[in-house]
Amino acid sequence: MIKKLNEAFFQPASIAVAGASDDVHKPGGRLLVNLKDGRFMGKIWPVNHKKSEVLGMQAYPDPQAIGKPVDLAILALPARFCRDAIESFYQHCRTKCFIIVSAGFGELNEAGKQLEDDLRALAEELDIQIVGPNCIGLITHGMSGVFTQPVPEFDRYGADLVSASGATAVFLMETGLKQGLKFQQVFSVGNSMQIGVEEVLAHLDETYEAGLSAPLKVLYLEGIQQPEKLQRHATSLIQKGCKILALKSGRSGKGQQAASSHTGAMATSDTYVDALFRKSGIARCYNRNELIDRALMAQLPGLKGNKIAVITHAGGPGVMSVDALEKAGFILPTPTEVDQNILLEQLHPGSSAGNPFDILATGAEKELEVALDYCLKSENFNGIIVIFGSPGLFDEKPVFELIAGMQKNAGKPIYTVIPSPINAAEETTLYLEKGGRFFHDESLLARAMGTSYRHNDIVGLLEDGKALECVESGRYHSNVAGFLPYNVAFNLVQEAGITVALPYKVSKQEELTGVLEKLKYPLVMKSAGMLHKSDDGGVALNLTNDNLAMEAFGSLCCKSPENAVWVQQQARGDELYIGIKREGAHHVLLIGAGGIYLEILQDFQNVLLPVNEPEIRYYLSQLKIWPILKGARGKHGVDIDKLVAMILRLNNLIEMYPEIDELDINPMMCNSDSIVAVDVRIKIGDMPREEESVV
Amino acid sequence: MIKKLNEAFFQPASIAVAGASDDVHKPGGRLLVNLKDGRFMGKIWPVNHKKSEVLGMQAYPDPQAIGKPVDLAILALPARFCRDAIESFYQHCRTKCFIIVSAGFGELNEAGKQLEDDLRALAEELDIQIVGPNCIGLITHGMSGVFTQPVPEFDRYGADLVSASGATAVFLMETGLKQGLKFQQVFSVGNSMQIGVEEVLAHLDETYEAGLSAPLKVLYLEGIQQPEKLQRHATSLIQKGCKILALKSGRSGKGQQAASSHTGAMATSDTYVDALFRKSGIARCYNRNELIDRALMAQLPGLKGNKIAVITHAGGPGVMSVDALEKAGFILPTPTEVDQNILLEQLHPGSSAGNPFDILATGAEKELEVALDYCLKSENFNGIIVIFGSPGLFDEKPVFELIAGMQKNAGKPIYTVIPSPINAAEETTLYLEKGGRFFHDESLLARAMGTSYRHNDIVGLLEDGKALECVESGRYHSNVAGFLPYNVAFNLVQEAGITVALPYKVSKQEELTGVLEKLKYPLVMKSAGMLHKSDDGGVALNLTNDNLAMEAFGSLCCKSPENAVWVQQQARGDELYIGIKREGAHHVLLIGAGGIYLEILQDFQNVLLPVNEPEIRYYLSQLKIWPILKGARGKHGVDIDKLVAMILRLNNLIEMYPEIDELDINPMMCNSDSIVAVDVRIKIGDMPREEESVV
Repeated sequence: MIKKLNEAFFQPASIAVAGASDDVHKPGGRLLVNLKDGRFMGKIWPVNHKKSEVLGMQAYPDPQAIGKPVDLAILALPARFCRDAIESFYQHCRTKCFIIVSAGFGELNEAGKQLEDDLRALAEELDIQIVGPNCIGLITHGMSGVFTQPVPEFDRYGADLVSASGATAVFLMETGLKQGLKFQQVFSVGNSMQIGVEEVLAHLDETYEAGLSAPLKVLYLEGIQQPEKLQRHATSLIQKGCKILALKSGRSGKGQQAASSHTGAMATSDTYVDALFRKSGIARCYNRNELIDRALMAQLPGLKGNKIAVITHAGGPGVMSVDALEKAGFILPTPTEVDQNILLEQLHPGSSAGNPFDILATGAEKELEVALDYCLKSENFNGIIVIFGSPGLFDEKPVFELIAGMQKNAGKPIYTVIPSPINAAEETTLYLEKGGRFFHDESLLARAMGTSYRHNDIVGLLEDGKALECVESGRYHSNVAGFLPYNVAFNLVQEAGITVALPYKVSKQEELTGVLEKLKYPLVMKSAGMLHKSDDGGVALNLTNDNLAMEAFGSLCCKSPENAVWVQQQARGDELYIGIKREGAHHVLLIGAGGIYLEILQDFQNVLLPVNEPEIRYYLSQLKIWPILKGARGKHGVDIDKLVAMILRLNNLIEMYPEIDELDINPMMCNSDSIVAVDVRIKIGDMPREEESVV
Repeated sequence: MIKKLNEAFFQPASIAVAGASDDVHKPGGRLLVNLKDGRFMGKIWPVNHKKSEVLGMQAYPDPQAIGKPVDLAILALPARFCRDAIESFYQHCRTKCFIIVSAGFGELNEAGKQLEDDLRALAEELDIQIVGPNCIGLITHGMSGVFTQPVPEFDRYGADLVSASGATAVFLMETGLKQGLKFQQVFSVGNSMQIGVEEVLAHLDETYEAGLSAPLKVLYLEGIQQPEKLQRHATSLIQKGCKILALKSGRSGKGQQAASSHTGAMATSDTYVDALFRKSGIARCYNRNELIDRALMAQLPGLKGNKIAVITHAGGPGVMSVDALEKAGFILPTPTEVDQNILLEQLHPGSSAGNPFDILATGAEKELEVALDYCLKSENFNGIIVIFGSPGLFDEKPVFELIAGMQKNAGKPIYTVIPSPINAAEETTLYLEKGGRFFHDESLLARAMGTSYRHNDIVGLLEDGKALECVESGRYHSNVAGFLPYNVAFNLVQEAGITVALPYKVSKQEELTGVLEKLKYPLVMKSAGMLHKSDDGGVALNLTNDNLAMEAFGSLCCKSPENAVWVQQQARGDELYIGIKREGAHHVLLIGAGGIYLEILQDFQNVLLPVNEPEIRYYLSQLKIWPILKGARGKHGVDIDKLVAMILRLNNLIEMYPEIDELDINPMMCNSDSIVAVDVRIKIGDMPREEESVV
């Protein structure tokens, strides 16, 4: 495993391009052009075994002909020539850093995979580092080593982009640049032979310098090889003040297959990815458009509250943005009548100052400045959306100069929407040149603003809370992996301090009396060993006295394949589902509406263990059934404190018994007095290993 | 009310522009340029009281100076001069059609509203037609009478755009044109003084000619003045083979306020708009991006099934589109191994043919053609998504020429996604010139495809079904508007053929015995006249015998402010909510999860009455709780046939008693045997008038 990327990727003194070409339409040609045009000031060695000059530069037939130190070699050669090239560079130029942009390795076929495995072994043997293969290259602080266009200009406040797909990296750069997104570095990891997204993130974390490093990391992932590494460094970066946005594809069944054939990524449960990202503080996006919008937002000042002003010269988009903002949970405060009147005096007759501020089609930079200035100064607003297009009549450049200027020193975010891709094309270009960022659609913007704003809550939960005291018992020794016997599962959970409706197995009438003495009515009785108990009349509910219990025993015992029944106290309340599932080295906790509603309403929250108390409270509050739990419409709610404590105890149970693969409590019966596990199922697996690949 | 727009808006022989200007940056200048550059071949009369020549054309000081017939006059004059101009045109040029683009009317202030009212009265008096004021104008078959840019080229397969906001019309044209959307006519109705979206739609319906008229209508609405008119003509157009897409803003509270101050639209309940649109077959969109994407889709061949192929040269977007397609309910069939092998032989090594078809970064037009040709010919696929960008290395024009060419004769839709706004900029321009249409984001495309595909089901429901026979009773005579007494509401619903748990009021112990004889156990008893019955111990459930009933009577009667109780049979089952609410001349039916889940889960469907049986079945099946109703996880479901019949009876009840303002059944207890209304509330209002404005 690579601990830290070699410095030569970032500040090489010299770079060789193997496969250098005169043809700028070929990777080896474009690479040279990009390197020359970029920030790299050192020596470039084109290597071409046929030509003595490439693009006006002296070329060398092979590394031996260079015969001087080369910090970094970029290989744009057929796959089968890469190994020799690496050995030769290592031997003759002491090169320890390589980027292989060539395809034809693991993603191609078995033979390619063999080539890749050989390279990996070689890299370990020589202690060298290789980015790729099958990638577009790297843009780092020191050089632009990619064979694609565009090459974003280095911006000290820009984002670092790390992508598992070269094409996606290109499309993200293009779309981002067109809307004013700024970049620092770009890492295309291709087949991640030695260096994947996780390694790059680790490097960015370990070398992070506030004020110098990119405060925003944008990730595109198809699989996750090392979830714990990803989590550790993401959390660390976020604690250092970074924001991390990620697009993770391969969510659906067919999508995972496709991702697998694309970069060899293997299936990762999407529930797990959600939980992992939330636990890491990574903001998950679901399409390119959302990713770019949220990246643009992250490069504006942060939104410190949910009160928004909308300023526009076009009523329609104003109304649409208000609709979308309210739906996303934002508030649009109305200025006082006094303030409105002061503003209206400075605007054209017929304008509105009630938020949205409609300065009318005739409103231009003067009127916009009045409204914008007011909203920037007013403490009523945490952020401002300005929607400005053009009917194609006159030059709106002063408007966009104004916005770009006012954005510079604004302490709060100004989100600019330009709905005019034709009429305001020149204005948009000017605005981008002035450092502006913009959005295409006010409704999609509002939606992304909402998701982004709510993500702050999740980031706020990342600090550790105190764990409750857990059971003192020793480790559970599971001799056999698989499901625990019914009562053993209950015992284990009870031992962890969770109240259970303990089931007693009774096979003889005379035993029943003893059991009935231990239990309080009403009771539930079930035929032991029956598969479809409910359907086949194997359950008796509401047994309120000895006679009914005796009667039920008689009837249910006969139906039981084991000639026995399970008896337990009947619990009342709202049904919750609490499940824990191991994914790789992690356990994911699912909390949701229980019983029949679990599958139908899909109302659950998935959380990575370990959890602390604030996290549990937060995720409970995100359930649709939260109003019911809290107590809605005159009904008593559930004892939330007790519920939280029970979940914390489960958390501790898993810390003690990490070999638990699955734990299901369904239902957990919850009312205002008690929280009782009515049905418990536990499956034991192997002991976990250190960092397990779950990809 | 305008029945049909005057032909002179469409094929005028002569057009005057009042306020004609030399300055093309002013409305009166740009109007002239647009008219001259457009399809209009007749005589243009510039009117300018200061100049004898405008933009190289002879100008006239006033209508009198023209002194010849003018079919259409477009006024770009200050609001206060419009009335005189109209009278003068009418008198001297026999003009009967006007477009007023000027602002400063009802949207401005009370004085402006007065001006507008005067104009409306004048129009009625003179029997003339006025579009606007406060609009950008019209682009019709015969002329381009707008003062904005761009002016879309007339396309015989293009869409008609009807917009309540001029700026929104411009932004929709710009965004649409940039993605290849084609237009026929554009109607900006501004303040809708005489002619609103409804009148334009009526005209488009009444003059519809298959093969000539636009098969797609795109609407932007802020308020709905005449819902029945909108419904009638939308349905009629759809039956003639049209598609109608609408963006309706002013959904939220603040959004309705904003819409009101923008175009004077007043609050329309959003639930009602949803129901109205669905009943009319109008496909509702929620943002500009979605509207344009769906309009582009409507201009491609229709999707006749849910099986989709994805072809790409870039793995990442391929995976993302598959994720989004599966989430949207589409299937991505995998070709047979034989087919895959045949394809792979013709593609570059390492390509995938398992759907998504990944032809690799090195794949170009030749490889694309292989995959595209296969998918077009295979019956396995109903539609194809092609995602093609560019890494910026070489010219991809042949690829886009190929797509444009293959789209022409394809019997199924090819949805093109171009994720490269920079590298493929020239290719995109060429592709648009060749008549291509494209999308920016494969995930947003897939989402819109899903919504669009599901909309077909709703359109399929528009044919009338048979209504069940209803109660024979005469009209209910309500002397007083307001809530009906508790038992009267039950009686009315029962009379309509709906099973109710009829409540009996009992105030004396001796009456109770008689009532108990009529009812079957178990019973429910409630204190009569108590406000918060559940909270204050005013309800007794599960009364299973006479003793329990007597006991409950003793306790509940005392608590009752009326010294009485309501007794009814207790019903069992799943709780549904069925509500009917009058909105203007329509009644909206709400069906959803009942009891506490109604508000919490927001699981309801809203349907405009009258409904037929297939509609009820469809909307029930769209509920989240449908699996429970149908019978899930071994549980018996609900008698759906009976439930449908009950809802049809309610429908008939409303037809007989249209003065019902509100009718709530909550809960309707549903099980596999019976459907029983347990609580009924009915509010009576005034008798409905013909077409009521609900805006």
